[in-house]
Amino acid sequence: MSRQILVNAFAMNTPTHLVSGTWRDPDSQSWRYKDLAFWTDLVQHLERGLFDGLFIADVLGIYDVYGGGPEAALRGGVQVPVNDPLLLVSAMAHVTEHLGFGVTASTTFDHPYTLARRFSTLDHLTRGRIGWNVVTSYLNSGARNIGLDRQLGHDERYDVADEYLEVAYKLWEGSWEDDAVVRDLDRHVFADPAKIHPIGHEGKHFRVPGIHLAEPSPQRTPVLYQAGASGRGRAFAGQHAEAVFLAVPTEAIGAARVADIRARAVAAGRDARDVKVFSSYTVVVAETDAEAHRKHDLYRSYLEPEATLALWSGWTGFDMASYDPDEPLRLVPSDAVHSTAELLGNGDWTVRDLVEQAAGLRPGGAFAVGSPATVADRIQEWVEAIDADGLNLCNVITPGSYVDFVDLVVPELQRRGVYRTSYDEGTLRRKLFGRGDRLPDTHPAARHRADVSRQSAVPAR
Amino acid sequence: MSRQILVNAFAMNTPTHLVSGTWRDPDSQSWRYKDLAFWTDLVQHLERGLFDGLFIADVLGIYDVYGGGPEAALRGGVQVPVNDPLLLVSAMAHVTEHLGFGVTASTTFDHPYTLARRFSTLDHLTRGRIGWNVVTSYLNSGARNIGLDRQLGHDERYDVADEYLEVAYKLWEGSWEDDAVVRDLDRHVFADPAKIHPIGHEGKHFRVPGIHLAEPSPQRTPVLYQAGASGRGRAFAGQHAEAVFLAVPTEAIGAARVADIRARAVAAGRDARDVKVFSSYTVVVAETDAEAHRKHDLYRSYLEPEATLALWSGWTGFDMASYDPDEPLRLVPSDAVHSTAELLGNGDWTVRDLVEQAAGLRPGGAFAVGSPATVADRIQEWVEAIDADGLNLCNVITPGSYVDFVDLVVPELQRRGVYRTSYDEGTLRRKLFGRGDRLPDTHPAARHRADVSRQSAVPAR
Repeated sequence: MSRQILVNAFAMNTPTHLVSGTWRDPDSQSWRYKDLAFWTDLVQHLERGLFDGLFIADVLGIYDVYGGGPEAALRGGVQVPVNDPLLLVSAMAHVTEHLGFGVTASTTFDHPYTLARRFSTLDHLTRGRIGWNVVTSYLNSGARNIGLDRQLGHDERYDVADEYLEVAYKLWEGSWEDDAVVRDLDRHVFADPAKIHPIGHEGKHFRVPGIHLAEPSPQRTPVLYQAGASGRGRAFAGQHAEAVFLAVPTEAIGAARVADIRARAVAAGRDARDVKVFSSYTVVVAETDAEAHRKHDLYRSYLEPEATLALWSGWTGFDMASYDPDEPLRLVPSDAVHSTAELLGNGDWTVRDLVEQAAGLRPGGAFAVGSPATVADRIQEWVEAIDADGLNLCNVITPGSYVDFVDLVVPELQRRGVYRTSYDEGTLRRKLFGRGDRLPDTHPAARHRADVSRQSAVPAR
Repeated sequence: MSRQILVNAFAMNTPTHLVSGTWRDPDSQSWRYKDLAFWTDLVQHLERGLFDGLFIADVLGIYDVYGGGPEAALRGGVQVPVNDPLLLVSAMAHVTEHLGFGVTASTTFDHPYTLARRFSTLDHLTRGRIGWNVVTSYLNSGARNIGLDRQLGHDERYDVADEYLEVAYKLWEGSWEDDAVVRDLDRHVFADPAKIHPIGHEGKHFRVPGIHLAEPSPQRTPVLYQAGASGRGRAFAGQHAEAVFLAVPTEAIGAARVADIRARAVAAGRDARDVKVFSSYTVVVAETDAEAHRKHDLYRSYLEPEATLALWSGWTGFDMASYDPDEPLRLVPSDAVHSTAELLGNGDWTVRDLVEQAAGLRPGGAFAVGSPATVADRIQEWVEAIDADGLNLCNVITPGSYVDFVDLVVPELQRRGVYRTSYDEGTLRRKLFGRGDRLPDTHPAARHRADVSRQSAVPAR
């Protein structure tokens, strides 16, 4: 049987997520991001298309590396203004039944005690359809606004994140036993204190002595997404992530990355298939190849080099403002920076090429343009070549890119037997892995369940 | 013309908010607090009843003063487990058109840079129906879990809150000019950097140099609720609050509190009527007085002294666990503690009396029991006697207490010409005050608008 393909939609609570300038298209509704109906309509399209989920990126900060200031990002509306993504979820859950929600939240901006309650709340309200995209944040402009001079160093951020997750696991998995809420009408007992345990966490970065504030939710720990591209980030993903979002420019880089992540999962005592890999991918589809290419040309014509480079400069730390558009690029690849940088040392790329690549519209990589059959061919090739589980589908036009995919590509993939024809029942985790609602015993969170039996004689405090 | 009466519903994302034991009633659905449909059904009832808003309390922490531990609170399910209230809003906004949402968030647990974005996001998604109940938090059990040894001192918490609001005002009112988002198709400009200003805040407690992340929302600053009962809290309210939630046990105490708050508003250069006072109030209503009294007796029979005292001990800091139920109470009133304490020095109260009073079910104070006509009489007397603008309506049974009020009391108040018969159009602030969407010029937030013209020549950074 051919490989089944999972699909998340990749969006952000902002006018322009990744493809600059397309907000000028008459069909774009991206400026309606602040309108609740924009989101409730979008997710109903996604559920009609049997998507696994909506994956929402976020940044807390602005892109101010390019030209030494935020002007280019503001002019382009790229990832600024940007609203909070978690607050969209309950409305989207109300109008859907199966769609999952993978939402970005940073270990830098919120305390684990409050973040854990937020995700437990959403796991309850969605009946187990919430995922958390764990990020450590990369924009110094954001860190400065919460009183830090700059972000912590890259590896130190991950050390904090390791302890952050430990605290969250203890709260989610170890504090309330499954049967702690008894609602015993005769004994007049709502919850049994003997089954609710303080986590007593005393670490290097966090001290959380008390109990979790939320009762056990369907999944307890939300489905854990992660997108770290660096070596330290991939180690983190191999240990913790259940789903990895991967943005890679070529099959070769993608295949190496996926193999590395699966190997790291195995090294951490997990199964290579315990990590679902969603590869960032862009599609321009129409009834015919010719029509799709016309759309592609139109979308490329919208691209604003300055706005795209504002994003890319923020991702990589290279200020691209001084480069001429037709200048060949010779940059040194770095493990810590965006994967497109790996390409730049190898070829005769100009700034224009980089803009098209960074926007996801450059043929040859994680991009398909054409008829439904052509696009389906490319997607199957890509997913198999890099050993991904599915796509994190980027938008060029919202909601148009997703509506096109649902109407044209999904039926083609279904005809080929590589895409679901109905949803399975149950939580997001159950749907993704075909087993239980809770994390498997091989996951590092599971060890904190043991606390429940060990501490059960200790009174709650 | 008789005084018009405003009504908020007063709820919490928890099985038991204020009245212990009634979760055992067959009609109670309070344990469904974690179910989205519970909330979307509730707010549709409230909007049918033309309520001004839903006011949602919150605590981050557990009540562990009583008996030196959280066991009593857990057994009673009183304000624990407790889920995040902000995450309910978008779903509730989706199913309503006019209802306001006043949501509690603490200046202790989130940074103003992230909190400001959360409320801007909700002001957009609700089209200007969001309010923020500003609290400084009182539970040491919560503070310990974010790494503090205990809460800051009471007055110091308000000093932090003053600066916290200053930061938030700068972000909401001073960062983006109204016409900063231009969406200029010809010039390819989404937002004009010259109209977006860094706030450059350097204070004692916070340093926030950058711009707000959200574009201007309908109300900019959410409608500001406050509930401080202490002198310092009332000074804070007089300066900042547009709506005050007041919990007072007698007309005399209520009238003095309201007069004090209005005087403090005037002293701060505002109008006495720029602060809407919502008085905490409990209603048990039925078709006849006799039937209502039977319901009242039933509800009183559910009360769990231990659970109610767990709340009261948390509010006041007095551990009531060692008191006998029939023991006379002689406590020293304190400015900083819950207003019921003011009663205890004056009369021959027993613990049982205190339980009934703290639960809101003791006749004589902010409580009415009877037929719709009887209840309407009491409400009108109470509101006029203390010079309140309306009620913060507590629930005994959810959603039953609100459904009863909507079905029985609202029509009676409407017949008397003291309750609206339709909603006005517009934002929550416009509905409450009958003027604009934004704060009036006399509010302290307004001075941060001046920054816009002063800074407009400075490039955004």
